[in-house]
Amino acid sequence: MNLFWWQEPCQALDHVALQKATRRQQRALKPSGGLGQLEPVLIRLAGMQGREKPRLDQICMSVFIADHGVAEAGISAAPQSLTGVLLRSTVEGGALSVLARQLNASLEVIDLGTAGPVGTIEGVRHLQIGAGTLNFLHDDAMTPAQCLIALASGRESARRAVGQDLFIGGGLGVGSTTAATALACAVLGHPATLLVGPGCGLDETGVLHKQTVIDAALERHAVVRDSPLGLLQSLGGFEIAALVGAYLECAQQGVPVLVDGFVSSVAALLAVRLNPRCRPWLLFAQLSAEPGHRLVLEALQADPLLQLDLSMGDGSGAALAVPMLQATCRLHAEMISLEDALGRAMASDVTGPSAAGRAALRAVR
Amino acid sequence: MNLFWWQEPCQALDHVALQKATRRQQRALKPSGGLGQLEPVLIRLAGMQGREKPRLDQICMSVFIADHGVAEAGISAAPQSLTGVLLRSTVEGGALSVLARQLNASLEVIDLGTAGPVGTIEGVRHLQIGAGTLNFLHDDAMTPAQCLIALASGRESARRAVGQDLFIGGGLGVGSTTAATALACAVLGHPATLLVGPGCGLDETGVLHKQTVIDAALERHAVVRDSPLGLLQSLGGFEIAALVGAYLECAQQGVPVLVDGFVSSVAALLAVRLNPRCRPWLLFAQLSAEPGHRLVLEALQADPLLQLDLSMGDGSGAALAVPMLQATCRLHAEMISLEDALGRAMASDVTGPSAAGRAALRAVR
Repeated sequence: MNLFWWQEPCQALDHVALQKATRRQQRALKPSGGLGQLEPVLIRLAGMQGREKPRLDQICMSVFIADHGVAEAGISAAPQSLTGVLLRSTVEGGALSVLARQLNASLEVIDLGTAGPVGTIEGVRHLQIGAGTLNFLHDDAMTPAQCLIALASGRESARRAVGQDLFIGGGLGVGSTTAATALACAVLGHPATLLVGPGCGLDETGVLHKQTVIDAALERHAVVRDSPLGLLQSLGGFEIAALVGAYLECAQQGVPVLVDGFVSSVAALLAVRLNPRCRPWLLFAQLSAEPGHRLVLEALQADPLLQLDLSMGDGSGAALAVPMLQATCRLHAEMISLEDALGRAMASDVTGPSAAGRAALRAVR
Repeated sequence: MNLFWWQEPCQALDHVALQKATRRQQRALKPSGGLGQLEPVLIRLAGMQGREKPRLDQICMSVFIADHGVAEAGISAAPQSLTGVLLRSTVEGGALSVLARQLNASLEVIDLGTAGPVGTIEGVRHLQIGAGTLNFLHDDAMTPAQCLIALASGRESARRAVGQDLFIGGGLGVGSTTAATALACAVLGHPATLLVGPGCGLDETGVLHKQTVIDAALERHAVVRDSPLGLLQSLGGFEIAALVGAYLECAQQGVPVLVDGFVSSVAALLAVRLNPRCRPWLLFAQLSAEPGHRLVLEALQADPLLQLDLSMGDGSGAALAVPMLQATCRLHAEMISLEDALGRAMASDVTGPSAAGRAALRAVR
């Protein structure tokens, strides 16, 4: 057994399926590259799923929820007790639960540790790694053991997604964007001012305070800045570490991932730093309203599908993008080829293009 | 009967429904404005449909297809006979037919006139206003009567959409982007170089030639440049005039419109110039790969939902955006409010936030 399991190789994409899907797109009755940004996503899905015609019928969503010790520094517009409310609402009635039901997706909600007791909530997996992380202004956010357990909890979720068509993760908890911003700053070598944002509703003064807190944390933990694992332990949240573990295991098991908002994109960044070979398995749903998101996506060379200034809970944007991808998959599977369209037109006496016309049409492709 | 029927008043949005939908969004368990760009679209849909919870279950798609006389000037990568192939494939097997089937949308395909005979194609409404337009380098593209008939044909389509949740139009035909570019240049007062693009696959030399042709047409028809109707008759395509008529009638009948690509956005621009009161009824699906599209959308002060560099046939992008809007409508209808989420948390001994926590949560909204 390798304690550093995430360093194991990731699955290779299926090059035969990639080529077949590419040719299928080239043959279709539409301008070459007509699907724009959707086309490379579609083709990569084909390579990941090993199918000329990829599909998105069975979708797994895992939402990791945890508290952050740094919340005591007043970095969020919401009181820490929101985390418990989110645990409950994500199971029933919250945005992610509504979206999961629409997609007929399986949704698991994992409680990685809240500051106060929440009791047992039906439908929630209570793992409770600790009573939230410690305040990273004064301590490492997690012990090394907690960090490994958080990574492993994400890994377990990804294992439950094996054989499914897509994995979507989400990370929630009061203080989540503060931890994610600190991690992104540390990995990218940027000061907080370049990335910090309002999270779930800070005003300008609040954002400035959040920036000061993050810069102080970056200074305190500077010694680990070249170790992604060290950073995760020092600055991370349980939910971020779980997402990192989930993404890495998805890539090792061959499950396509649709990464969503700022928090999960930062987790994707750390996953890629821990094992760059996971990168081909990550698709990116959206550029959110959080200002640091653009820089994180750029560092990942990621082209997000949507740019709608969403600031819903992490995971919602990916769920909103899925129906468009489903439609794209069906379009790819079902639309007619140029040759078939020509054949049908030729079968009629009056509507068929001339031989010169047919040659010209083929040349356009 | 008013010959200039499009000058009649448009329906007003339902302000009670607008307010109710706005309040519903404010009460939901999510950051204020969390749905980003989707939120104003959702609320406008509520106002258009007169429902606090708008829906997109019944969708009408009308695709107008016609030939362009200017095709003889060699402004398209495709031979003119593609138009007949598109007529046939839009009924069955082409992108729009596949997307319409997915959306369970009604799809009507209207043949407004092709250069060569196409015979009778099952499922196509053959209106055949003429054998395509005339070449606008030498003549007005249409006679005044043809222009009125084309507008009326779109009006008829819109009337068939009354009572439906959404109207999507599409305009296809070899030469379509050339006519649309000429119209946009004339309306916006720009030279062709600012807007011209590759259409369905021109190379650089082809684009330069297209630009020369458009500039020549703009000079020839400069005298009508202040009359949107005159421009439509001089430079338009039958399919563009039909889209203009459809959009105006939708606004008069109270049917929400989702405008798609470059051709239909230019039709929307002309509709707004003919009757500015139609503007609130127009939603915009996407910014396409056609370079002139951005300027046209800016002139309409339109925020497109998608920016995916699509260059599919006009109408496809809107159909791809609909599933995301449907998901947004259901999210709006079904997601829990903050107060209900608090109520549920309070019903438990251990998970409820304190009174101070509840007050803080309400203050975030």
